[in-house]
Amino acid sequence: MTPIGIIHTDFKSKKGMPIQAKTSPDGKGRIELLDRYVDGISDLEGFSHIILLYVFHLSEGYRLKVKPFLDDEKRGLFATRAPNRPNNIGLSVVKLEGIRGNIISISGTDMLDGTPLLDIKPYVPQMDNRENARIGWLEHKIHMMENTCNDGRFGG
Amino acid sequence: MTPIGIIHTDFKSKKGMPIQAKTSPDGKGRIELLDRYVDGISDLEGFSHIILLYVFHLSEGYRLKVKPFLDDEKRGLFATRAPNRPNNIGLSVVKLEGIRGNIISISGTDMLDGTPLLDIKPYVPQMDNRENARIGWLEHKIHMMENTCNDGRFGG
Repeated sequence: MTPIGIIHTDFKSKKGMPIQAKTSPDGKGRIELLDRYVDGISDLEGFSHIILLYVFHLSEGYRLKVKPFLDDEKRGLFATRAPNRPNNIGLSVVKLEGIRGNIISISGTDMLDGTPLLDIKPYVPQMDNRENARIGWLEHKIHMMENTCNDGRFGG
Repeated sequence: MTPIGIIHTDFKSKKGMPIQAKTSPDGKGRIELLDRYVDGISDLEGFSHIILLYVFHLSEGYRLKVKPFLDDEKRGLFATRAPNRPNNIGLSVVKLEGIRGNIISISGTDMLDGTPLLDIKPYVPQMDNRENARIGWLEHKIHMMENTCNDGRFGG
C-alpha cells in the first residue's frame, strides 16, 4: 500500500474532531493528489460525493474490545468504527466541491490534517446503500452522533 | 497490511462473476476469521449488513484510464469501481447471515473465493448514506448494472 496523495483538513489533533464525516458538513478540506495520478480523476467531477479510503496514520495499536465514541460499554472492535484497528484503514464519504489540477476540494471531512490517501471511489447510492438495515448496539445510541466529538479515548 | 481472515465464495474466476454486491443477493459466502481476532466480532450480530474491505488479490497492475464494466468509453480510474487500482482495496456491503465461532456467514457477495480480508466495519445508514447524490457518467448507465457481469476486461 502506497499513498496516492495527502488529505489536508483543519483538524490538527484528534481531540475535538468529528467522529463521522456525516456530522461534519462544514469541515472543509482538500486532497493533494500526487501528480502521477492526475489522469485517474478525469470524469470524477460529475459525482457529488466520493468515498475516501485512507490510513489512520496516528493510530497506534488496537484492542479487540473497545468503548466506542457512542457507548460506555465495551464492544467488539469490528462492530465499531473505532480508528485503532489491525489494518488501520479509514473510510469516509465526503462531498466533492471541485477539482483544479491535482487539487480536489472536499467538504464533510472527518480526518486529520496530513492523512495519507489510499484510494478514491465514486459514491453511488445504487451500489452502496442498503434499505432496512439493523444497526445493533447503535440503535439506541445513534441519536447522539450529531453532538459527539472525539474525546481522545483512542489517543490524543 | 495483513489479512484478518479469508472470504470464501462460489466465484472461482473473474469472468461471469457479479460486478457489485448489490446485484448479487443470492451470492453466498463465509468469512473465515483468524482465531486471534474472534473477540473483535462480539456485538457484530446485531447488524444486518457489514462493510468489508479486502484485497483484489488477483488484480495485476492498473491503468489510469479504463473502460469500466458499465461503459465502453474510457473513464478516469478513480471515477470507476474497477478492481485494478494503485492500492487494490475492494469495498463491499454484504448481508450478515450469522456467526458461529470464527465463521461469519454472509450473502450478497461479489468477491473471488480466497479473497484476503482486511477489515470489517458495521454498515450504518445514518453514517454511510448520502441523499441526492449525483453519479456523473453512471447516470445513464446504472440501469444496466443488474444485468451486467464481469466480462474479464480487467483480466481473467
